[in-house]
Amino acid sequence: MNDFQDWARSQQQRIEARLHQLLPAPDIAPQRLHQAMRYAVLGAGKRVRPLLAFAAGELARARPERVAIAAAAVELIHAYSLAHDDMPCMDDDVLRRGKPTCHVEYDEATALLAGDALQSLAFQLLGEYRLTSDPAVQLDMVKLLAAAAGSRGMAGGQAIDLEAVGKALTVPELEFMHIHKTGALIRAAALLGARCGDGLDGKQLAQLDHYAKYIGLAFQVVDDVLDAEAPTATLGKTAGKDAQHNKPTYVSALGIAESKTFAEELRRDALAALDGFGEDALRLRQLADFIVLRKF
Amino acid sequence: MNDFQDWARSQQQRIEARLHQLLPAPDIAPQRLHQAMRYAVLGAGKRVRPLLAFAAGELARARPERVAIAAAAVELIHAYSLAHDDMPCMDDDVLRRGKPTCHVEYDEATALLAGDALQSLAFQLLGEYRLTSDPAVQLDMVKLLAAAAGSRGMAGGQAIDLEAVGKALTVPELEFMHIHKTGALIRAAALLGARCGDGLDGKQLAQLDHYAKYIGLAFQVVDDVLDAEAPTATLGKTAGKDAQHNKPTYVSALGIAESKTFAEELRRDALAALDGFGEDALRLRQLADFIVLRKF
Repeated sequence: MNDFQDWARSQQQRIEARLHQLLPAPDIAPQRLHQAMRYAVLGAGKRVRPLLAFAAGELARARPERVAIAAAAVELIHAYSLAHDDMPCMDDDVLRRGKPTCHVEYDEATALLAGDALQSLAFQLLGEYRLTSDPAVQLDMVKLLAAAAGSRGMAGGQAIDLEAVGKALTVPELEFMHIHKTGALIRAAALLGARCGDGLDGKQLAQLDHYAKYIGLAFQVVDDVLDAEAPTATLGKTAGKDAQHNKPTYVSALGIAESKTFAEELRRDALAALDGFGEDALRLRQLADFIVLRKF
Repeated sequence: MNDFQDWARSQQQRIEARLHQLLPAPDIAPQRLHQAMRYAVLGAGKRVRPLLAFAAGELARARPERVAIAAAAVELIHAYSLAHDDMPCMDDDVLRRGKPTCHVEYDEATALLAGDALQSLAFQLLGEYRLTSDPAVQLDMVKLLAAAAGSRGMAGGQAIDLEAVGKALTVPELEFMHIHKTGALIRAAALLGARCGDGLDGKQLAQLDHYAKYIGLAFQVVDDVLDAEAPTATLGKTAGKDAQHNKPTYVSALGIAESKTFAEELRRDALAALDGFGEDALRLRQLADFIVLRKF
């Protein structure tokens, strides 16, 4: 696992450096907007989606410098969604990644525009950089990321989440919500990383997609457990806010103990989806362990 | 000009029908989000950007059914920007295209998510449909639309606009703002329409871009004049709100008479940029007239 930590740290540094370069410089007009975009993205975050992209890229023997662009695009979408999700009309939160949220540090209008511009930038990267030998495959990657971000993906999941406040959801209903809200982008991260290479056939891409689906759900279940158990300082975001906001979670549906058991089952399902992959899937296996066993 | 009106009406019907099909159906989950997306896009609007795309497509001998997808993508970006721009933390407006604004009809969170999902859908269309014979050109179109929408395009222009409230801008400063806020997307509409065909070389695309730049500015100058002069009922949005919000406009910088003269100059510059194009540029010429001479 130490070896994994070294790998993860080096990939996190790689994506951080790349995001630093790819985001508009803070001294280019409109400065305040560019500063807010950088604030919303840089300097924090576990970079789980980029790690997944890099791990999937290794499996598909993709060039890491290409995967880094795809990973950056996914992370920009994720960061924009957090900036918007924290706004007063949504979750109205003040703390994110250990810092004041974007609209608190800047203002609501700037946070709104920064999120909007981060989404544009994500697609600009996919249009601008060469990520595959076949531009038609790259167009398919544009479609994949857009669908994952859109109304039948992440944004749709957030809408379902909004409607669920105050309701007691069943476990299948929770799953439906999370498959959209966080699962779609996590799956996109894995698939985009893999598609920067050409080492996987359609069946193997489907296996990877299954793996990512389980990982995405496991991530959410663990998130719910941590929100209920961990202190704010460790979490870097306001703890206990699910219960406070009366949001349905796995903890509220299953209890803490059963949620942990469920996360463990999902981890095993994720690993099983990688059956038949050899050593190249090492990082994906380790990532499954990391996501379920993490403490923050 | 009657002939132009027939043409414009038929293109408006074409884009309306296409948007109707391309937007997620209102009965697909999450229903409320999909309804809000459709509300923000359908049933109103002059569709100036699609008209430009179709006119540029004619010049480049592009297939209209391909141009319609590119035009829809641009219009989705435009519609998302209106939904966000009308929100309380931005312009806080209640009337748009003759109807309650999206956050008034639904709620702020839904308007925010609908805007976000409309942006994603725009890029999904460019990734999903075949618009050119060369996928590499189509990737360039993704980049073009993303850059036009982003922090150095439309979203950046809105940020500059926010910072300008209460200030007296010079005409060059106003121009800088509008070249971003509305100009970038108008230029993208023309260029995307043209790039669906392969009838134009680089020099001709640059001419078209110049035309669109002048048209974009003229559109804004006329918008400012109409905001100062036209009644709300004709305009379909709250009239007089620029002065009310203390926003710098061409009318506040130049006065109404000189603004009208300026719009006329821009129209002539736009037409001059089309020099050397033959009959295929007819619709572009007529569109320049329409944009400057419109009363709403």
